Amino acid sequence: MNRFWKDYPVLFHELNQVKDLIKKNISSREKYLEEAILPMVDGGGKMLRPAFLLLSSKFGEPDPEKIYNIAAVIEMLHMATLIHDDIIDDARLRRGSETVQYKYGKEYAVYIGDFLFCQCINMLANYDYNMEDLKNISKALTKICMGEITQYNLRYAKHASLRNYIRIISGKTAALFALSFYTGANEAKCNELISKSLGKIGYNAGMAFQIIDDILDYDGNTEQLGKSALRDLKRGYYTLPLILALEKDKDGRLLKLIDNKDLSDEETKEIIELVNLYNGTSRAKEVADRYTEKAIARIEKLPNCESKDIIRSTVINLLKRDY
Amino acid sequence: MNRFWKDYPVLFHELNQVKDLIKKNISSREKYLEEAILPMVDGGGKMLRPAFLLLSSKFGEPDPEKIYNIAAVIEMLHMATLIHDDIIDDARLRRGSETVQYKYGKEYAVYIGDFLFCQCINMLANYDYNMEDLKNISKALTKICMGEITQYNLRYAKHASLRNYIRIISGKTAALFALSFYTGANEAKCNELISKSLGKIGYNAGMAFQIIDDILDYDGNTEQLGKSALRDLKRGYYTLPLILALEKDKDGRLLKLIDNKDLSDEETKEIIELVNLYNGTSRAKEVADRYTEKAIARIEKLPNCESKDIIRSTVINLLKRDY
Repeated sequence: MNRFWKDYPVLFHELNQVKDLIKKNISSREKYLEEAILPMVDGGGKMLRPAFLLLSSKFGEPDPEKIYNIAAVIEMLHMATLIHDDIIDDARLRRGSETVQYKYGKEYAVYIGDFLFCQCINMLANYDYNMEDLKNISKALTKICMGEITQYNLRYAKHASLRNYIRIISGKTAALFALSFYTGANEAKCNELISKSLGKIGYNAGMAFQIIDDILDYDGNTEQLGKSALRDLKRGYYTLPLILALEKDKDGRLLKLIDNKDLSDEETKEIIELVNLYNGTSRAKEVADRYTEKAIARIEKLPNCESKDIIRSTVINLLKRDY
Repeated sequence: MNRFWKDYPVLFHELNQVKDLIKKNISSREKYLEEAILPMVDGGGKMLRPAFLLLSSKFGEPDPEKIYNIAAVIEMLHMATLIHDDIIDDARLRRGSETVQYKYGKEYAVYIGDFLFCQCINMLANYDYNMEDLKNISKALTKICMGEITQYNLRYAKHASLRNYIRIISGKTAALFALSFYTGANEAKCNELISKSLGKIGYNAGMAFQIIDDILDYDGNTEQLGKSALRDLKRGYYTLPLILALEKDKDGRLLKLIDNKDLSDEETKEIIELVNLYNGTSRAKEVADRYTEKAIARIEKLPNCESKDIIRSTVINLLKRDY
């Protein structure tokens, strides 16, 4: 986190408060449990979701203690979903570090994720939050879960459709981004128009963020992302660059390649080449850009303040990549 | 469920309402998901926790719709913990049917449990519940999770102590029993003395229930319980009969036997014989009886009504077994 927010000392300080709150809420008489979660808190995550929540809250009149608490909850929910996802994906690395499931075993990872969920609910129940925000949080949780389940169920579905892909990433990524933006504003008693607009900024930024992440899988490398290149493909998750490339795959060569569940390095390389040849990545970038533009257009209409500037720079920094 | 509550037609009807609510709340556009959970709802479970919640609510003035909703939540939370536990335990059978993890794979079982958790939170957020009850539910959830984690961490701990065992079952079983009794009463606006007393009845009944379950592992058989005999022992979970028998194991013979992680049928048989020779099961029955007596003494002090009679009969029926 350190480097990412270094230009914004107030936000940086606040995110450290959130981090301390997370640490306090994962402390437990089971030291093993704390040890398993701590590296995730201190690791290289950008804490984007709590940062967006804090920034959004500044459009209203935030009660710092309540806002830090809910920001911590959002990050902990995110951590819980990552831990459970890594079980499903059998992932060895996450943000360049070994995953909980790899280090402690899948069994333990199930409970560690559950423990984080429980602590989130405790943290929400013990503050006097707006009932509407609680409803939104629980709705977003279901969306995330359904997104993951749909993604899992559609593994190896050769004719993966754009529509399903959009549905999946709306759930698994954009829902929590939208929630962070909206809840920050709503808890700070912003007027409904601004809160909703911030929620939509979150949604569009989240969509672009996930698409870009999926694009990097087709032209990034392991060192850069801290995760194995093309891990999604090997697990049968067909993301946007591949879906768009398949539309141009007239001779069925690409389709035949991905049909193989045990891909060699050679075949993986060929898939990447074909996806790029068929403009899968460049067309996916266009889709991401459309979401980014929508987010930026809405940002421009927000009332002028420092938060607006930080949100704009951050969205541009994250989403306007050179690839 | 059908046979267990057959003598109480009103309760039986209400539990069917709760069952319908659960079915409604697990319905989803992902048909696969619903299919995986339905057999658990329609299976042989007694629905003890929602039944106790409904019975407790009758000591006050229950709003049926709210009470059915929270009773459904309690049963769904229980189902979610069972699904995740079966992943950890690698269990093939539960209540005589194949487990979700066995039928659909561990990966899918993680998400199915998560989905149930999410739906529970949704159901709680969308009703105007007493904030105190929400806090209690979230506290109980953490207790259950911590109970499971402690149990998991103390696997193969040869000098398993009575104290740790009590701590584990307080969390993993008694907490949800206590919660069901207390919440039913509290949501129906019973006076605090009665609600608390019902909560304690739940705690004591839950402790006795779990100890008896653990005893049956040392003298039951697969057909009777629908789970493999001594599964706990083979997984390194040392329960009360064994813990008490080890106190009499002067020559270390029993200790040496359980030290073997890959028990043969012969060795398993010998362990059962030794546990019984050292009075492990009979002494565990005494401990269970003490909890049962505490529960019954409190039941007797409740105001007279039909619910009191049903609670008394049910507790006696469940806990005063002939073994």
